[in-house]
Amino acid sequence: MDVTIAIDCMGGDHGPSVTLPAACEFLRSDPEARVVLVGLPEAFVGVHAEELRAFGDRVRIQHASEVVAMDEAPALAMRAKKDSSMRVAIDLVKNGEAHAVISAGNTGALMAISRFVLKTLPGIDRPAIVQVLPTTHGQTYMLDLGANVDCTADHLLQFGIMGAMLVEAVEHIERPEVGLLNIGTEEIKGNEVVKQAGELLRGSGLNFVGNVEGDDIYTGVCQVIVCDGFVGNVALKASEGLGLMLSTFIKEEFRRSWFTRLCALPALPILKRFRRRADHRRYNGAVLLGLRGVVVKSHGSADVFAFGQALLRSAGAVRNQLIERIERRMIDYINTHSPALDAGLPMTGEAQAANQVVRTA
Amino acid sequence: MDVTIAIDCMGGDHGPSVTLPAACEFLRSDPEARVVLVGLPEAFVGVHAEELRAFGDRVRIQHASEVVAMDEAPALAMRAKKDSSMRVAIDLVKNGEAHAVISAGNTGALMAISRFVLKTLPGIDRPAIVQVLPTTHGQTYMLDLGANVDCTADHLLQFGIMGAMLVEAVEHIERPEVGLLNIGTEEIKGNEVVKQAGELLRGSGLNFVGNVEGDDIYTGVCQVIVCDGFVGNVALKASEGLGLMLSTFIKEEFRRSWFTRLCALPALPILKRFRRRADHRRYNGAVLLGLRGVVVKSHGSADVFAFGQALLRSAGAVRNQLIERIERRMIDYINTHSPALDAGLPMTGEAQAANQVVRTA
Repeated sequence: MDVTIAIDCMGGDHGPSVTLPAACEFLRSDPEARVVLVGLPEAFVGVHAEELRAFGDRVRIQHASEVVAMDEAPALAMRAKKDSSMRVAIDLVKNGEAHAVISAGNTGALMAISRFVLKTLPGIDRPAIVQVLPTTHGQTYMLDLGANVDCTADHLLQFGIMGAMLVEAVEHIERPEVGLLNIGTEEIKGNEVVKQAGELLRGSGLNFVGNVEGDDIYTGVCQVIVCDGFVGNVALKASEGLGLMLSTFIKEEFRRSWFTRLCALPALPILKRFRRRADHRRYNGAVLLGLRGVVVKSHGSADVFAFGQALLRSAGAVRNQLIERIERRMIDYINTHSPALDAGLPMTGEAQAANQVVRTA
Repeated sequence: MDVTIAIDCMGGDHGPSVTLPAACEFLRSDPEARVVLVGLPEAFVGVHAEELRAFGDRVRIQHASEVVAMDEAPALAMRAKKDSSMRVAIDLVKNGEAHAVISAGNTGALMAISRFVLKTLPGIDRPAIVQVLPTTHGQTYMLDLGANVDCTADHLLQFGIMGAMLVEAVEHIERPEVGLLNIGTEEIKGNEVVKQAGELLRGSGLNFVGNVEGDDIYTGVCQVIVCDGFVGNVALKASEGLGLMLSTFIKEEFRRSWFTRLCALPALPILKRFRRRADHRRYNGAVLLGLRGVVVKSHGSADVFAFGQALLRSAGAVRNQLIERIERRMIDYINTHSPALDAGLPMTGEAQAANQVVRTA
């Protein structure tokens, strides 16, 4: 199936020096993929731009006159930079010229502009950032990872529903297990918001397994883990930090002397396998879930390989009809679980309308 | 210097089967240490109790008739179990019969009972759980790790002051760098409480380095990291979970076949060194900071080695005169930073009195 991805080439710590070669790699590996590259005119000179020309009409270049800075206030970026590479790329999805948009830029701005341009799905107040994480047995989807720093219990319920629908749609798992991130497994544990969210989730009709703790993120105890964006972001980054520290330690031990280097030689292929398996770059590409369009956020520090993984993920989301499936299931959910909805989901006019008519994407 | 530690022998997942052999090990390694073992009478039969008798009057056994369960509500444990092993052990500190108390039991109950029995230091509303964590370069102290799940900005300021005082007292570092855990380094980032806490910390006179992110926990960017107990607990446990997953992965890779096992042989001593360096058991033993007494919480799942580390830590805290130093510095701090105090620290009658008289411990 043909898929067109709009790429914000200016985003991230490395900008076009990462996004352009990753786009080449992506086009080579996926013959049915097309890209629209959005960026300042000066981004499209040099060796990578040359290389991209070889893909003919599978590559389209769209100029933008502005760039959203990594530390810019999201509201300001949205209002003042209407011709930013990020905004132009998102507009392409809105206008049907691309199936998905990807950016390694300012997360807050990407969320704010996407929400403004694309709007949210029925029943969803606030989109959430969701990412797949490796576990000892399989993988788990965790949300929110930083879009919402002050969540209510209702928001956490919505994240649970969206996460479950995502896993049903993409992983084809019926009624995936949903856990609520907390500081203990007992119902009495946690702050007020989390306790209330636990009650809402228990009455939601989801396959709710109760509270899970931080270490459960990596044990695969459930397929969906729900948390506030502040907590999720810290947990994810703490894990990244620990992973980096451990890999520094292991390198230092093996490079301690010529003798340890020699001892390490036969084990190198095994260590390489391990590194590949634990490589967090493979999991790059978080989806901004709850929007009427596929928006993928790459890690700001992503290299060519990591950005490429996020590109593959965005194409996969399009081919899996992620938005249509989630929307359909969301509406089913609203129809069959009106009690939970009354308790948890604020019924907007839009959501009410969606109860009647399934919007064609 | 002679030091006496009261041990709640019943606490933790393993109870006396871990706490008793760890006490033996501790007494062997520290000839100036004494212990008071608190537990049900039936805990003190069998081989470990026999072994402990060899230490003569360095070991005292104190019976208790109840045990606080791991999932018991803290308030209930405090009110209803006045003869629990945990309560009796804490009372020993209050009565001057022990210098410190250690438990691997119910964290909430340990905090509630300690606070009720020992009271807090001047200027401190809420004690916090602090633990030292390894970093790529050195180590960092992080608090709160789970005692307070709904913190105000004032509480976070108090944690910053206590953490800084702790590092000054124990690590002998003048004006240690204090960071505030957030989801971005810019001042505009974070939820309302964290933004307010940032303002208070900036005006506190502490060596405040601003916001730090989850990955900074393990880079050693500052010596003290301040956060809400919910966030801290999740971050710490997520790190534990990731560590466990990575160690499972590495074991699986090396045990994949007889060939990989053979290749691993020369690297085994290096891997062992790495494991020792990354071993989280070495960091077991969190201090409940802000109380008028040394209270150390061991991980519930601690084994003999890990519980022994926590015992060494509690003896170290006593010998470093942790409480006296923190109290003295806290009072100095209150006297010299009254503006920050007015903004942040609720001035209790107790704290006001403490401004005049330095309590002798």
